[in-house]
Amino acid sequence: MPITRDELLALDAADPLAPMRARFTLPDGVIYLDGNSLGALPRATAARVAEVVTRQWGQGLIRSWNDADWIDMPNRVGDKIARIIGAAPASVMVADSTSVNLFKLLSAALKLRPGRMTILSEAGNFPTDLYIAEGLRDLLEQGHRLETATHDEIMARIGDDTAVVMLTHVNYHTGRMFDMAAITRAAHAKGALMLWDLAHSAGAVPVDLAARDVDFAVGCGYKYLNGGPGAPAFLYVAPRLQQSACFPITGWLGHAAPFAFEPGYRPASGIQRAQVGTPPVISLSALDVGVDLALEADMAAIRHKSVQQTTIFAELVAQQCVGHGLRLVSPTEAAQRGSQVCLAHPNAYAIMQALIARGVIGDFRAPDVLRFGITPMYLRYVELWEAAVILREVMESEVWRDAKFMNRQKVT
Amino acid sequence: MPITRDELLALDAADPLAPMRARFTLPDGVIYLDGNSLGALPRATAARVAEVVTRQWGQGLIRSWNDADWIDMPNRVGDKIARIIGAAPASVMVADSTSVNLFKLLSAALKLRPGRMTILSEAGNFPTDLYIAEGLRDLLEQGHRLETATHDEIMARIGDDTAVVMLTHVNYHTGRMFDMAAITRAAHAKGALMLWDLAHSAGAVPVDLAARDVDFAVGCGYKYLNGGPGAPAFLYVAPRLQQSACFPITGWLGHAAPFAFEPGYRPASGIQRAQVGTPPVISLSALDVGVDLALEADMAAIRHKSVQQTTIFAELVAQQCVGHGLRLVSPTEAAQRGSQVCLAHPNAYAIMQALIARGVIGDFRAPDVLRFGITPMYLRYVELWEAAVILREVMESEVWRDAKFMNRQKVT
Repeated sequence: MPITRDELLALDAADPLAPMRARFTLPDGVIYLDGNSLGALPRATAARVAEVVTRQWGQGLIRSWNDADWIDMPNRVGDKIARIIGAAPASVMVADSTSVNLFKLLSAALKLRPGRMTILSEAGNFPTDLYIAEGLRDLLEQGHRLETATHDEIMARIGDDTAVVMLTHVNYHTGRMFDMAAITRAAHAKGALMLWDLAHSAGAVPVDLAARDVDFAVGCGYKYLNGGPGAPAFLYVAPRLQQSACFPITGWLGHAAPFAFEPGYRPASGIQRAQVGTPPVISLSALDVGVDLALEADMAAIRHKSVQQTTIFAELVAQQCVGHGLRLVSPTEAAQRGSQVCLAHPNAYAIMQALIARGVIGDFRAPDVLRFGITPMYLRYVELWEAAVILREVMESEVWRDAKFMNRQKVT
Repeated sequence: MPITRDELLALDAADPLAPMRARFTLPDGVIYLDGNSLGALPRATAARVAEVVTRQWGQGLIRSWNDADWIDMPNRVGDKIARIIGAAPASVMVADSTSVNLFKLLSAALKLRPGRMTILSEAGNFPTDLYIAEGLRDLLEQGHRLETATHDEIMARIGDDTAVVMLTHVNYHTGRMFDMAAITRAAHAKGALMLWDLAHSAGAVPVDLAARDVDFAVGCGYKYLNGGPGAPAFLYVAPRLQQSACFPITGWLGHAAPFAFEPGYRPASGIQRAQVGTPPVISLSALDVGVDLALEADMAAIRHKSVQQTTIFAELVAQQCVGHGLRLVSPTEAAQRGSQVCLAHPNAYAIMQALIARGVIGDFRAPDVLRFGITPMYLRYVELWEAAVILREVMESEVWRDAKFMNRQKVT
């Protein structure tokens, strides 16, 4: 039986997450399917940022490091993120970018496994993860190797030489999700450490780092946590590793006594030693608002709606766009799928530009993928219908063959 | 002849920079002498940040990477900073924190001088600079050494084994300034590279990186550039080194084609390869406003007023506080002094707390320094009089012996 628009309206009417949409500001005439590139603006963010800028900075000036407790923000917001990803208090810190955090944790992992020379990752992982591993390998000049394997081969490739398995939980390109429990167990069984990149997981799919006994993780603040463009990232270090992990970028705020201004470095105890420079207070405040919203929405409810929405959107595309050569790249099985639907087409770039011109905003991922992010906190079911109809119209009209949609932009 | 309050009022009346003060928001009842810890809030910042949050992010969403040209902000703001520090276009990039940038540039310097094993720095340099060098040395395990020497001994200590001389141009603790031209020449004469930390220089004292033939530099956005708490930092790479420098944290935005999502890392050409992760757009916007103000004020005028103000404040303290055991730590010779006045006293911490309680905000630097930052863009001459009088009152009353001023705060 084909899905009908009325069924989707009924799902919206019964949706327990429906009230969350009003907590976000979304432009008129837009169906936003790109929350996995940049999450939408929470309604409360502008006022919060204004308060930090005008009152805390403008009036409080330097005193706000104590009076507004800016200095503890990386931990305070980190502890909130911890609750979203199943981590213990004091095991998550907001700091730097995802890439920099990957560098810090990957380096710590290699130092914890001397003699093991292999970093194992997925072929097709988000490039920055692989680039960071390459850069660290080349910097160290100690003979480390970066090996990649396909999703299905990873488990079998973990070996006695594997120092660390570094994987992105949900693949940015396909939306395929790893079995975190099984892979982490397999890594540990071989004596390797496990580092998960939660860029497309935190706030989107349930994650339970403590229950899975994960060693290290990083994640992104500007996708499903709705922290704003270039929001600071976060990192996780298992409590059992916090006193033995050595981070290579030993900045003053990772020192045991940063305001003693001692000449020699002594790492702080706990997660604190993973901090480097002065916390980005304004950006952190924006992130804090987004994290609060993710905490407010029940993660089981988010996952339930996400699975429904990705399943329905894939079905709607199959229903509406038959014969147009769009191939589903995401897993058909919901348990293996993150919160996105990806379709391949040789003209994906131009098709996405034509969609965006009609208000359906997803993104293009080279070489040939149309990526649609599903963000249950603000996406209505009926918008999936409208997006699928517009996709059909774009495909039928072949408007994407227009030269103006072919011109590549700086950011795609 | 002692300085009089009327003389200071006359200086204010004749001050060409006086109108700049109205471009900042300063709280009533405060004399702000801590712009070298956190610069004051420019009046235009709140509206700019609100525009970026509400319109660019909220309405533009992901499209703003192109439509608002977010993607080029690190270069665009970097090019403005370049004009403040005498650097060529496309040689400055806004990125990460000062500490992370030090790590990137120091690592690049060591790779450019294989076989040379010494990093030379100042004993008493800002701790993060030394910590970062220690951390890199320990990470590499290649036998590098971090050597430190006093300000006066640095030049003589540069040797054939020196890979890089890493110095903070203006010392955070004393305000003493290095002779950038002479030290850079001396480093090059021995075949070493020169890395300057401009944290207390950019926007405060004239710097001419290109004319001095400096190799690398880093600097801070939240001090004299008034970019806000935890503003992103910047880095400089001499154009002649941009194609040979290899940065160790190889993130996707330093890739030659970040949106091609290639599996292997290829460094971008030029300064672009020094970028790592996604630019922090909201913080960058705030920094942009501060940088614009620094560009608007003539740097020669800033230096002229800064020298006058530091000289006058030191004289006023000598005049008002004779016999109270305050010892001037900053250089008496203006040419050797950055834009701050530092006084040592065994009870410096409690004295500074008592001053802050009376609205004179400077900061304490362990173990015994009262530090007063001079920011000519918004500091009036007559405020120096008032600050010196309040300092005298605090010293005379011995109110700082009160237990409430002894309790250390998290941030000092």
